[in-house]
Parts: sequence; C-alpha cells; structure tokens
Amino acid sequence: MRIVVDVMGGDHGCEVVIAGAKQALEEDASLTELFLVGKEEEVRAAMKSAGLQDPRAQVVHASEVLTMEDKPVVGLRRKKDCSIARAVELVKDGRADAIISPGNTGGVVAASTIKLRPLPGVERPAIATVIPAQENEFVLLDAGANVECRPIHLAQYAILGSVYSREVLGYAKPRVGILSVGTEDVKGNELTLEAFKLCKQLDINFIGNVEGHDLFANRVDVVVCDGFVGNVVLKTCEAMAKGMFRWIKQELTKNVVRKTGAWLAAEAFRTIKRRTDSDTYGGAPLLGLNSIVTIAHGSAREAAIKNGIRHTGRAVHNGINQIITTEIARANARLDCRAAEAPAPS
Amino acid sequence: MRIVVDVMGGDHGCEVVIAGAKQALEEDASLTELFLVGKEEEVRAAMKSAGLQDPRAQVVHASEVLTMEDKPVVGLRRKKDCSIARAVELVKDGRADAIISPGNTGGVVAASTIKLRPLPGVERPAIATVIPAQENEFVLLDAGANVECRPIHLAQYAILGSVYSREVLGYAKPRVGILSVGTEDVKGNELTLEAFKLCKQLDINFIGNVEGHDLFANRVDVVVCDGFVGNVVLKTCEAMAKGMFRWIKQELTKNVVRKTGAWLAAEAFRTIKRRTDSDTYGGAPLLGLNSIVTIAHGSAREAAIKNGIRHTGRAVHNGINQIITTEIARANARLDCRAAEAPAPS
Repeated sequence: MRIVVDVMGGDHGCEVVIAGAKQALEEDASLTELFLVGKEEEVRAAMKSAGLQDPRAQVVHASEVLTMEDKPVVGLRRKKDCSIARAVELVKDGRADAIISPGNTGGVVAASTIKLRPLPGVERPAIATVIPAQENEFVLLDAGANVECRPIHLAQYAILGSVYSREVLGYAKPRVGILSVGTEDVKGNELTLEAFKLCKQLDINFIGNVEGHDLFANRVDVVVCDGFVGNVVLKTCEAMAKGMFRWIKQELTKNVVRKTGAWLAAEAFRTIKRRTDSDTYGGAPLLGLNSIVTIAHGSAREAAIKNGIRHTGRAVHNGINQIITTEIARANARLDCRAAEAPAPS
Repeated sequence: MRIVVDVMGGDHGCEVVIAGAKQALEEDASLTELFLVGKEEEVRAAMKSAGLQDPRAQVVHASEVLTMEDKPVVGLRRKKDCSIARAVELVKDGRADAIISPGNTGGVVAASTIKLRPLPGVERPAIATVIPAQENEFVLLDAGANVECRPIHLAQYAILGSVYSREVLGYAKPRVGILSVGTEDVKGNELTLEAFKLCKQLDINFIGNVEGHDLFANRVDVVVCDGFVGNVVLKTCEAMAKGMFRWIKQELTKNVVRKTGAWLAAEAFRTIKRRTDSDTYGGAPLLGLNSIVTIAHGSAREAAIKNGIRHTGRAVHNGINQIITTEIARANARLDCRAAEAPAPS
C-alpha cells in the first residue's frame, strides 16, 4: 500500500500530521511507502523532532500551501506547487494508491476531481462521512463536495454509500434512505422527489425517505442528500455533540456533590466520548474518483491522522473502486433502460 | 385576547389538549375567550373529565379531523368541516385573534395561508422555531413551510425572525445569519448567495453566513434558511438531543457506582433538560400571516399546550404583525430602490 500524506494545511501544523504518520507506520505493516508532501525543510525538521526515521517514509517537496482562506479553483491555479496538487500528481503518475489531506476541503475536492477524474460512469464524487450513533454508524453523503445536485447525483450517492458501508464498515445489507422532510413518499423538494423515483429502481436496500428523527434511531445506514444539506447537517451534529458535552461538563462541575457524582459516573461519559470521537475515522473519503482520497478534519491531531491513514488503506485494500465501477455501471444501465421503457411524454 | 385551540389532530387525543387549555385559562387572566374546536361530543366529554367549566371556554363543533396521513391541500378540500379549517374561519370572521394547533403541519400551513392570506408585502409565511442553546436561544426559520425558496423569501425571513426575536424573545439587536456551508461570503449555493446580497441591504443586524458550528456557540440569534434545510436541521437537532440523553441515561444505569454518581449529579441533568425542553415554547409560530398561528408539536402534552397558548397570546399582545408589516414594507422598498439604482444588465 502506497499512501500520500499532504502534511501541510492542517490547523496544527505539519508536526502533528507527521507524528500521526509515524504512528501509522509503526502499527501498519501493509504500508509499503508513505509519501510526506510539503515544504521539505519543515517536513524534515518535523520528522526529526517526531523521531521518524522509517525508510518507508519519503519526503516530496512542495513549495506552497493552499490555505483555508484560498478559494479552491483560483488558489490551485495560482499555487501550482502547492502540497495538495503535488500529492494528487503522485497518484496520477501511478507512484501512489491513495491520499489523505487535512487541508482546505474545497481545494482537495477540486484538485482530485480535476486531476484524477471520476470513475467511469460516476457523475460527481461525494464526501462520505461516517457518523456514530448509539447502535449503529451511518454514512452521510454528500457532506459538501457538490452544493448543487441533480437527482441522478443523489441516486449515484446511494450506490457509493452502499458500497462503502458494505465493504469498509461491514454492513451486510445497508439500509439506504434519502434525507427529507417526512418519511412519506410524497414529502420532499423537487430534487429529493425525483431522486426517490430513481433510487426505487436501483438494486440496493432502499428504505425510502428518512428524516432527522431516523438518523440516531438505528433505522438507516446510508443517508443520501445534496452537499449543501449534508454539510449543514454534519456540522450541526458535530457542534451539537460538542456543545452538549461542554454544557454537561460545566453543570457537573458547579459544586462538590455534582463533581463527586461525575467522578463516580465518569466511565459512562468516557464510553460515549470514545464512540463519538471524530478521531476514530480520521477523515471522510471522497468517493467516486480514480483513487481513494480521504479528507481529514483541518483540526485533526495525531490519532485522527493515524486512523485516517488506516481507513484509507482499508478502502484501497478492499478494492472498493472496482466494486463502485461495477455497481455504478449496473445502476446506470438500469436507469437508462427504465427511462427507455417509460412512455414518451405526450 | 381571544385564542382558538384546534383540539383535534394531536397524537395524544383531545383530552391532553383540553387539559392544557384549562391550565392556560387558570394562569392567564388576559385570555378573554378560548375557543375549543373539535367534535363537540368528544370535546365536552374531555372538558368534563378535565374539570374545565370556565365560561371563557367555548366549544365550536367541527365534524372532521385532518389526520397526519392526510395530504394537506387534498385533505382540506375533502374535509370541509375539519377542525383546523373551522379554527381558521373563526379568525377570518374576526371572532378570534390567534390559533394554536397540534395537528398536521402541512394542513395548518395550507389552511391558514389560503384563508388568512399573508400580511401585506410578505411573499411567504415561515415557521419560526425557537431552539435553546446553552447561552442563548435562537430562532430558526423557515422550519418547513416552504421547501422551495427564492432569495427574496430568505431575505424576508430575516425580517420576520428579527422582529420575533426582538418583540417576543426580548433580544435587543438580534444577530441574523444565513445558514450555509461556510462563513465566508463566497460560500453557499445559488439560493443563499443571492439571499446574502439582499440581506446585506436590509436594516437588520446581519452578520453574514453561519454554519452548524455557530448555532450552539452564542454567535447568532436568527438563523435563516429554506424550509427543506430548516426542517431537516430542526428534526436532526431534536433527534440528537433526545438520542444523547437516552444514551447517557443508559450508560449511567449500567452499574451501582454509575447509578450513585448519576443520583448525586441529577440536578445538573435536570437543569439542561429544563432548558432544552421542547414544551417550554409549546409550538412554533407561522409568521407573516394575517393572524398569529402557532403550530404545536403533534406530541404536545398539557404543559406544551399551556405554554403554546401563552406565547401565542404574547405575540398578539406585542402586536408583532403590525411591526412585521411596517418592517417588511421598508425592506421591500429598500430592495426595490437598490434594484432600480443598479446599472441595467448590458
């Protein structure tokens, strides 16, 4: 497995990313090469301070960084030698299998979509985020790659999400739902109503519309929506979980009695914290491209980077892109042939 | 204050709604008339079992009920004598000032929009939901009245939400944001980008785009979005809060040590529960109509109905509709005049 790490562009600097890369190398023998792309001097200094001397780690110089403030496409045009562009080229040139980057999300999406191109038959790649609930974990997609979607995009996301849930998360027959404003077939907006008709024709475990109430009740494993809705929902969930924990902590430390109670019950909170920790996956895959590209949180720390590298490796290892290509071809054929069978509008 | 209660259509039957109405009458001397609309026999039986004998309570018979399964417009056409239609007519005929209904949301929106019409200058009414956070409470609108919106609708929601936050919730200078996928001006979809330009021209405290992360961090008091996004976000927040509390409870009762801790810390959880209790507001107002219409949760119990009646009364008392009419007229004039000033497209 040959994985490229874009070590620049994260919120905590390249030291943290490189420390995470070191942990990944230590734990994962299937990693044969790990490319660290960034400003060579900084990267080497960080490797030194992290004590990373593994011969599988190779530094690839890139003189520029696409920052969070850069507009994706404009930024990529101006900063030809930025780390994410160089990272993508390593895959394009066949020197690596997959990428992980904690940088500018729009920049990662733009660079990989432009240079790597979507898989055959895939109209748009989608960011798939794994969200942990009490009894299951569901994949939400698209979480922000395309803010304007057409019905066919949502139908294809249903396939992408199904494959990911099955092949990477291990759900045998993932339940796929369209995120809408009610569970009845007639509820939704133009986009979801049309997508509903398409999804019904696919060879997936489509359960129809789902709404917010279904997400955390173990009723759905793949939640399909446009990138605007997905991004808003994802950030709202993250913010709410964080806000609730902060609030609970504050209330629990208000007096000695509560503090004692909190101390006795600490393991309960730790269990939930562990399960909902965003570091567990370390990033969200951009599915549907001619490579595996994992977008890590800008705020990713060592553990997140390590886990991100492991999950990226697992997706490559399980060959999900071949499976996606096959299933997308089958889905497109189904939709085309149904469309051909349908009576022409009079 | 003359308020109409549609006592049918809630999940728990009319007994619960009538018990809530009784509490409202007991606590609120400014209520001069409370119309209870529903199947007369059932209503009178429920009044008897609740011990409601207040002369201000008047029964208005309606032989039918719009159920949660009915499609709003079709249902209203078929069930001419349903309780929500009769409730709206009482306001239309000038016999009452405001309505509260725990029934089919789409039905309430359709019946009131068709029969009561929007206020002058208002393009679409919006459901405004108050969401409690740790340090403030914010109004999210539209929470589901219109799933397909144009930019002018969002700009008007900014006005509606500002007035509500100021006049009913007491925020002197509510911070208004458009819910989007990033805080930068350039982030969003076609709808929000256009709405952003309009909101910048309004005489409100517009702070630009906000994202999920801002909602629970006391950064915004009025969150504007289309009814699809708003409904999804609202239900997701509700579901997540409920799911988290259930999960915490389960973890806290797993052994004696944790149970003891939970018992000692109980007051901390109660504080949060109280603040996040959806019964506190008892419903969401449908703003922008020639009346105050409050949509209660289908699952509303006594306390929610009582609080819903009180908040509905407060909105009437504060005359928010006159204020909305004035501010919408001013906003429309501003937008028109800016449009007229702008150079014609060449």
